[in-house]
Amino acid sequence: MKQLEDVRALMAQKHVDALIVPSVDPHGSEYVADHWRERAFISAFTGSAGTAVITSDGGCVWTDSRYFLQAGEQLKTSGLLLQKDGELGTPTISEWLGSTLKKGASVAINPQMIAINDFRNLQSELEVYGITLFTEFDFIDAVWQNRPAFPDSKTILLDERYSGQSTTDKLANLRKQLSDANVNSILLTDLGDVAWLYNMRGSDITYNPEIIALAIVTLNDATLFTGLNKVTEDMKDYLTKSGVEIRDYYEAFDALKSLSADTIIAIDPAKCNYALYKAISVKTKEMASPVFNTKCVKNATELEGTSIAMHRDAVALTRLFMWLEREMKAGHELTEISVSDRLHELRVEQGALDESFGTIAGYGPHGAIVHYEADEESNATLKPESFLLLDSGGQYMGMENGKPFAGTTDITRTVALGKPTEQMKIDYTLVLKGHLALGHQLFPFGTRGAQLDAIARQFLWNYELHYGHGTGHGVGHFLNCHEGPQSIRLNEVPAILRPGMIVSNEPGLYRAGVYGIRIENLVTVAEYDNNINEFAHFLHFRPLTLFPYDRESIYIEMLTPDELLQINAYHAFVFKEVSPLLNTEEREWLERKCAKL
Amino acid sequence: MKQLEDVRALMAQKHVDALIVPSVDPHGSEYVADHWRERAFISAFTGSAGTAVITSDGGCVWTDSRYFLQAGEQLKTSGLLLQKDGELGTPTISEWLGSTLKKGASVAINPQMIAINDFRNLQSELEVYGITLFTEFDFIDAVWQNRPAFPDSKTILLDERYSGQSTTDKLANLRKQLSDANVNSILLTDLGDVAWLYNMRGSDITYNPEIIALAIVTLNDATLFTGLNKVTEDMKDYLTKSGVEIRDYYEAFDALKSLSADTIIAIDPAKCNYALYKAISVKTKEMASPVFNTKCVKNATELEGTSIAMHRDAVALTRLFMWLEREMKAGHELTEISVSDRLHELRVEQGALDESFGTIAGYGPHGAIVHYEADEESNATLKPESFLLLDSGGQYMGMENGKPFAGTTDITRTVALGKPTEQMKIDYTLVLKGHLALGHQLFPFGTRGAQLDAIARQFLWNYELHYGHGTGHGVGHFLNCHEGPQSIRLNEVPAILRPGMIVSNEPGLYRAGVYGIRIENLVTVAEYDNNINEFAHFLHFRPLTLFPYDRESIYIEMLTPDELLQINAYHAFVFKEVSPLLNTEEREWLERKCAKL
Repeated sequence: MKQLEDVRALMAQKHVDALIVPSVDPHGSEYVADHWRERAFISAFTGSAGTAVITSDGGCVWTDSRYFLQAGEQLKTSGLLLQKDGELGTPTISEWLGSTLKKGASVAINPQMIAINDFRNLQSELEVYGITLFTEFDFIDAVWQNRPAFPDSKTILLDERYSGQSTTDKLANLRKQLSDANVNSILLTDLGDVAWLYNMRGSDITYNPEIIALAIVTLNDATLFTGLNKVTEDMKDYLTKSGVEIRDYYEAFDALKSLSADTIIAIDPAKCNYALYKAISVKTKEMASPVFNTKCVKNATELEGTSIAMHRDAVALTRLFMWLEREMKAGHELTEISVSDRLHELRVEQGALDESFGTIAGYGPHGAIVHYEADEESNATLKPESFLLLDSGGQYMGMENGKPFAGTTDITRTVALGKPTEQMKIDYTLVLKGHLALGHQLFPFGTRGAQLDAIARQFLWNYELHYGHGTGHGVGHFLNCHEGPQSIRLNEVPAILRPGMIVSNEPGLYRAGVYGIRIENLVTVAEYDNNINEFAHFLHFRPLTLFPYDRESIYIEMLTPDELLQINAYHAFVFKEVSPLLNTEEREWLERKCAKL
Repeated sequence: MKQLEDVRALMAQKHVDALIVPSVDPHGSEYVADHWRERAFISAFTGSAGTAVITSDGGCVWTDSRYFLQAGEQLKTSGLLLQKDGELGTPTISEWLGSTLKKGASVAINPQMIAINDFRNLQSELEVYGITLFTEFDFIDAVWQNRPAFPDSKTILLDERYSGQSTTDKLANLRKQLSDANVNSILLTDLGDVAWLYNMRGSDITYNPEIIALAIVTLNDATLFTGLNKVTEDMKDYLTKSGVEIRDYYEAFDALKSLSADTIIAIDPAKCNYALYKAISVKTKEMASPVFNTKCVKNATELEGTSIAMHRDAVALTRLFMWLEREMKAGHELTEISVSDRLHELRVEQGALDESFGTIAGYGPHGAIVHYEADEESNATLKPESFLLLDSGGQYMGMENGKPFAGTTDITRTVALGKPTEQMKIDYTLVLKGHLALGHQLFPFGTRGAQLDAIARQFLWNYELHYGHGTGHGVGHFLNCHEGPQSIRLNEVPAILRPGMIVSNEPGLYRAGVYGIRIENLVTVAEYDNNINEFAHFLHFRPLTLFPYDRESIYIEMLTPDELLQINAYHAFVFKEVSPLLNTEEREWLERKCAKL
């Protein structure tokens, strides 16, 4: 491969013994725009996760089990070796470099592509082997001819009619938070933080309606750094009115270098990339971004917009599953991809601008692959047996009865395509019991996600069953489908669940080679009865998602009377909310699906 | 008070502006021997928790709500002011010192009375105010005439017939752990660690069957530092045979000062006192003690000994509650103290050497005071109404059918003394449901206590009820009733639950001014079916405690069929295990209490 030859020639010139090429953008985004797909460019491996390490005469790519097959094939082109992350005996990148290179070796990495904390860890790991890091030259850019351009999507203004709070207000709050933290400025590098603060969206990134941008906010000034050609007139007017100056993306480096001497700037070392950090000459305070810890709590407008999106999503899903039933009955061939495509069309009809992540339509054994996404090769034909697991969501923005709204959805339903077996019903019902228990659990203010995770797992555990993923993630408002800091999972995350947060409730069960089950609703953390009694201030989850569970897969005898009431009440609520949006045939279909069990 | 005058005179001589006097011993023990009750001596306040701060013309004592009344009274003698810990607006000690003393002030503390981490925190808090710490003089010792002697209880040898593992073996394991941690020696300061390692017990400390001692273990040598007159001949022989040298307690300082230059010594900064730390001139590695993380997992002999203790405890409790019923029926006056005293006698009859903590017998409203211990003034008379909460335990060591055994018990039962009200039954049953759910929960290897805590709280939470204490603590083997690192509680504790650990399962509910409920069993973490399946390696809790729940207080209609089965199965197990140890009348009584619900 020419690019590998070129890069190795440059490495030799610069006396660099290895080059690390991660799969990230300068913002640590979940999805990476083509402009930054450096690892795919240099290694020929195109999967979403993986890190390449190039040496003068070899190198490797580390990736996880989702991509072992694909990487194995694609890496034949580059001659790089596959390192299987998560397998026993696979060395870490540092261990591999330590055992491959000599003491005194120099390893290059683009400092834009690594967060401060990760850089420090890498540095101290390599120090053990006497290896130093070199960050002074951008090898990939130097050899990447026809590099895809900097993302050029236009900004979308999400003014307070959509977002519920003006940028002026948000800036005032942020400045108060900065003062309280004894700093006088902040560098925002998380694209979601910038998008939220400036009421700005876009489509630079797949699934995440964001613009590639940075922000510096001081007690007096605020700046947006992005591609100047991306900013629409209305956005420009809005920001100017809000006291925000617009500058070119790469001027952020100059701006950081020329901060006044009395500046103390807040940066988040878990997110800010090392190149930006190096550009700062003033005092820093390392802390989580106050914007990150504020935007997770949704205001009434954001919650209402999300609820409207949920209603529209329910219409799309009703039509999808009606169509699926009809097509299956008619004996027409359906595949995982045709189902995903149909769902996409139905969501677009309802006003979705994009999906909120790549649809997971996993039929039978594919449902047991947690991050499965069908491609032409794997695409399975649906048969009237086993489970179809369908995890999907939409990014909505539009007008509802003449009023602006926006919101992000994420729902998983698992349906038996034929008559479910006894085992399928037991498994489905155990997952559902956990989903119901968590969804109806009251908990005191101060509770963290890890404390509630086992509420959803308790029934599975008592059957010696378990699932490996988290039970719940935060969700943005017409923003990223995975948004922190809240998280309901096995491992400890210190963020407490606060009223107004949106989280998913998605226990599952995966029988390798057989089928997968996941049941997911989004819920809002809410006050319970606004009640603070002598014991505690109790919160609970209020459902946002509106679609019935798979009644055929429910083992009624395994339910307690309470659980049966909970299902019936939820189904009645779904029907009440969604039926006015449906035609007669659809309404009758939904009524059957929501009938009392 | 003369002691205050004397200490202030010395403070003036040494140019010290304040003296901090904590309520601890040099080992951070839960209970403090008289020799170290320095704060009680200097302040006249005798409660178990509290810190005095003496200035040239005043000072304060910080204590918690349990002691506000008592401290208020007793501090009249010393003229020190009461600072109410946990109340809004109460300054921390550092804040108070910062606002009371001038910049440049010097504050003394006995470095034996503070752990390294606490010393560092105090130092950095006081630095903000320009205050420095002075540790070079022992003010209290200098003025304490007739100071109680160094504890002089004799050692008790708990050889491998009791403890299941020889000191030689334990030392070999420890040395391997030290090598693995890249150190070549360790200083053990936790009395439980020293007791366990050297198979040595004693009675220097109330409730904790321990000897005041330190240990230094290197790859070749092992030393016990304690009062030489305390070590019995059999203990001396055993230790000598195990390669352990015995030296005087205070020679530990010299030993630390004269460690060879190539020594890297492990110390636990959360536990080791600052005086010992200062004596170390070689390289240290700060880490949790491997002994602490090993002794928490009980071997078969320790578990068997604990089980024998549980059977004996059950006999004592059967006799106690039979007596209580009879006396109540006969109209004899019973009080919280008379019940505690009777229980103590019955435990001693069963071979208990001591209680494992001060019995909590809380009748009616007293049951709602979590750390209540009746005294002559508070001592309530029992009436045939409300709940009696009885939390108690014993330290057993002796012979069972000619075989040595030892073990520690801890049990709470709450009983309705008359016909329970509807509310009492609802509350009791909610607590019981949580206790049963946790007690029967399977969980994968790797689970931490904080993940399981909500399993015990879920039913209370759904009724908007809550309790403020932890759900479970670790328990020692004929050692401390509170032993780490494991803990089942709201806050995160990183220790995972490992097979062989003993923990309590003790949810509760406390209605202030009305009554308290707590139901506590000790359980062992155990493999479930020795089964490692494709999902996980499942563990569960096996019950150790053997005594029926209060059947009159159980609201059967609130139980699921599973819960009813669980209670009946536990009661049948209790009867099967305990009845052979009882006479006919007792057996009939227990049979009634254990009859199928």
